[in-house]
Amino acid sequence: MINISAIVYTLDRKSKIPIFVQLTNQIRQRVISGEIGINQRLPATRSLAIELGLSRSTITNTYEQLIAEGYIEGRSGSGYYSCPVGEVDIKSNSSSRKDNPLPELPQRKSQHHIHPSFPDMRLFPYRQWARCISRVARLTPEALITSENSFGNYELRSSIARFLSEWRGLEARPEQIMITAGSIDALEICLRTLATTGDYIGLENPGYQPLRNIAFNEGMKPVWLDMDSQGAKVPDGKQTPTVTILTPSHHFPLGGAMSPLRRHEFLQWAEQTDSWIIEDDYDSEFRYAGSPIQALSGFDTTNRTIYVGTFSKIFSVGLRLGFLVAPPELIPEFSTTLGKYGVKAATTAQRALSEFMDNGEFYRHIRRTRRIYGERRKLMLSCLRQKLGDIISVEDHAAGMQLLVALPDSYDDNAIVAAARDQGVVVNALSSHYAQGKPRKGLVMGFCGFDEDEIVRGVEVITGNIL
Amino acid sequence: MINISAIVYTLDRKSKIPIFVQLTNQIRQRVISGEIGINQRLPATRSLAIELGLSRSTITNTYEQLIAEGYIEGRSGSGYYSCPVGEVDIKSNSSSRKDNPLPELPQRKSQHHIHPSFPDMRLFPYRQWARCISRVARLTPEALITSENSFGNYELRSSIARFLSEWRGLEARPEQIMITAGSIDALEICLRTLATTGDYIGLENPGYQPLRNIAFNEGMKPVWLDMDSQGAKVPDGKQTPTVTILTPSHHFPLGGAMSPLRRHEFLQWAEQTDSWIIEDDYDSEFRYAGSPIQALSGFDTTNRTIYVGTFSKIFSVGLRLGFLVAPPELIPEFSTTLGKYGVKAATTAQRALSEFMDNGEFYRHIRRTRRIYGERRKLMLSCLRQKLGDIISVEDHAAGMQLLVALPDSYDDNAIVAAARDQGVVVNALSSHYAQGKPRKGLVMGFCGFDEDEIVRGVEVITGNIL
Repeated sequence: MINISAIVYTLDRKSKIPIFVQLTNQIRQRVISGEIGINQRLPATRSLAIELGLSRSTITNTYEQLIAEGYIEGRSGSGYYSCPVGEVDIKSNSSSRKDNPLPELPQRKSQHHIHPSFPDMRLFPYRQWARCISRVARLTPEALITSENSFGNYELRSSIARFLSEWRGLEARPEQIMITAGSIDALEICLRTLATTGDYIGLENPGYQPLRNIAFNEGMKPVWLDMDSQGAKVPDGKQTPTVTILTPSHHFPLGGAMSPLRRHEFLQWAEQTDSWIIEDDYDSEFRYAGSPIQALSGFDTTNRTIYVGTFSKIFSVGLRLGFLVAPPELIPEFSTTLGKYGVKAATTAQRALSEFMDNGEFYRHIRRTRRIYGERRKLMLSCLRQKLGDIISVEDHAAGMQLLVALPDSYDDNAIVAAARDQGVVVNALSSHYAQGKPRKGLVMGFCGFDEDEIVRGVEVITGNIL
Repeated sequence: MINISAIVYTLDRKSKIPIFVQLTNQIRQRVISGEIGINQRLPATRSLAIELGLSRSTITNTYEQLIAEGYIEGRSGSGYYSCPVGEVDIKSNSSSRKDNPLPELPQRKSQHHIHPSFPDMRLFPYRQWARCISRVARLTPEALITSENSFGNYELRSSIARFLSEWRGLEARPEQIMITAGSIDALEICLRTLATTGDYIGLENPGYQPLRNIAFNEGMKPVWLDMDSQGAKVPDGKQTPTVTILTPSHHFPLGGAMSPLRRHEFLQWAEQTDSWIIEDDYDSEFRYAGSPIQALSGFDTTNRTIYVGTFSKIFSVGLRLGFLVAPPELIPEFSTTLGKYGVKAATTAQRALSEFMDNGEFYRHIRRTRRIYGERRKLMLSCLRQKLGDIISVEDHAAGMQLLVALPDSYDDNAIVAAARDQGVVVNALSSHYAQGKPRKGLVMGFCGFDEDEIVRGVEVITGNIL
């Protein structure tokens, strides 16, 4: 048996690395390298301490650390022994991770997008928002990191209740409102609360792709709701969805609001079939003529609807805050879901957002961006009609953040989108939003995230790819 | 100005509660009640020590504890002063919750929890954190709401890379690091990237329930990894998991680190079977003897591991920030997942957290809480052994945020947990963490979120339900 102390340790007392750490590292390295063989007895703490001129507690600490890491073990009454360890090479690893080139991620700040659903962050009221955040940080710093329960900050939930009452015709109490990490998080929470794997889900066709991804990922089977002039059609009854997701205030991507008659039919159908309707109210703050259309949930006297809202469109995607409004009797079940899968909404901005809403800045921001977006919308409309009026038709619903540009069936909208993308202009193909049936052809073009110059150039690029 | 020493302290030298704790509790109480007014100067440590007949270090410890809790502050050269402890009174809202009663949600602030995995928010460095947030709001307000791409703020990812290198022995480039809305979000993103419905997933047994909920919700089938003295066992090969989730640095709930040999076996097995290992490194910053154990991912030369970390345990649950480290070749696939299902991590706190890490406050906070948690751990251990030493055994791994109290098989740990919960003390039953096989009986008791008084009372409640 070779005594470990025959091995030389180089301990540098002037180093910033504590002696204990140096010694631990060196013994560990010798166990890994095999210099200290398997099951070899290590010197007693006392004798190693004397030999190295260190306190005995330093040696004890070293051994305890190595025991915790599994490199050595203590056997009662007989001292410390090295353990078998596989070959582990830390160094080679770090070099391999550091040297090779890494794949690049798409950068957010790339120039010239006409993306359907982003607000223009150049219009963001940075100063006013920073002031709200700083105020919370100064006066109630605990609100930056704690909320009273898993549903989120109570002040924000109260501000949202007032917003819903005034802007969406929906009366809800703060207790019914749950803050989420955006609308996708809200929809996942809804599906996990209301449905199980194998259930049917009603989905609009055409519709928003990420919703489908979420629904399929939750193991649900689609019942496609085709569209007619009144909006999505009520399922015909062969397969009854447990949950149906609708965009009744402003259909994505076709635009237009569901007719009052169809809304009524849906609510009646939900009650008869004992199923749930999720109202995805993603951009209804932006109407450029008339006043906002009342939320479907505002009509619902039977408590069959869950309202989902987001601050991504009005305010900022990076905020990652949305909310849902649950019928009172579902509150405990939603709470159970949060307990089971965890909360994802960050607390940091919640109180500040409440102040931002209550002091009126939020509404000023909506009104201001709505005015500017309205101008941009008009400009895009006129550019499109001027350049492409013979080919396209634009259905004008005077709402939302994108225009639907309908193309004749002979056009390949996907090819136009791909060519435009190569030139730095991002739009969506209408046909890509269809899950079944004969897709209509067209382009979904956002007008909010771009100034006038960008809109003119964007339409030029699109025109070049259509003509 | 009233000198604090005019206030009478009743210190009971025969009590089981340490003098330091008694004094801390009494000063804290007097600050809260207003008996010690805001900004009142406290007596110097030396004079209070003489007056009370205690050692000066006892007074220093008391003051340090109260500084950490935010009740008093030290001003350089001028002594200790009481701080404003504004009533964080959420109750006042409840009066506005009018009309009919709605189902009540569990309140976060409910008195007397011994919850296994929460940090003590009374120790949170509110002022320093608020300063970081305010600084970002003032100097770079756009960083509050935008990040360069879907992986999150680059500065924060760089700070995390340095943290991982220094604390976890894991070398990663910022490009490999993705900011997530906590560790559950990170795990969902991993499963959506690496596996599909119907795949097998390796899960530790016993293990953490929310992980199972996530895995099952993603449609995966479990391969249970039973535990032996070296940690979770490598799957035997009949059903090969696509993904395996491990807690190699500190097993939940049993405690203890996976042996180096077993780590090596797992890495080798992952390479042979072309499967992935997710390292859930949930609380390894907290070791009360020695230094942190190197992350499994730090050993991985084959790029088969994804490291998942969280700020919930070190810093704050409400922050809802975690991260994952992807092998370079998986970066595009992780990016695709975010595109498909959306990002949930809020931008608001990311830049500030980076500053908090870079200016050293973060590490100071870890060291300070580790010291305090270490004391609490010792107190809980000694209370448990004193009261229940004949019945229980505590496996002491000197790490993490909870103690595992093993009970004889004849005890019904679930019944003990339920009875304690009725008395306001929340602990977990060990047997509830088992998915199959004969469960061991015991209690998983957190010691971090509670002051000394609460620990003493908590153990008393538990004792009353065991004896």
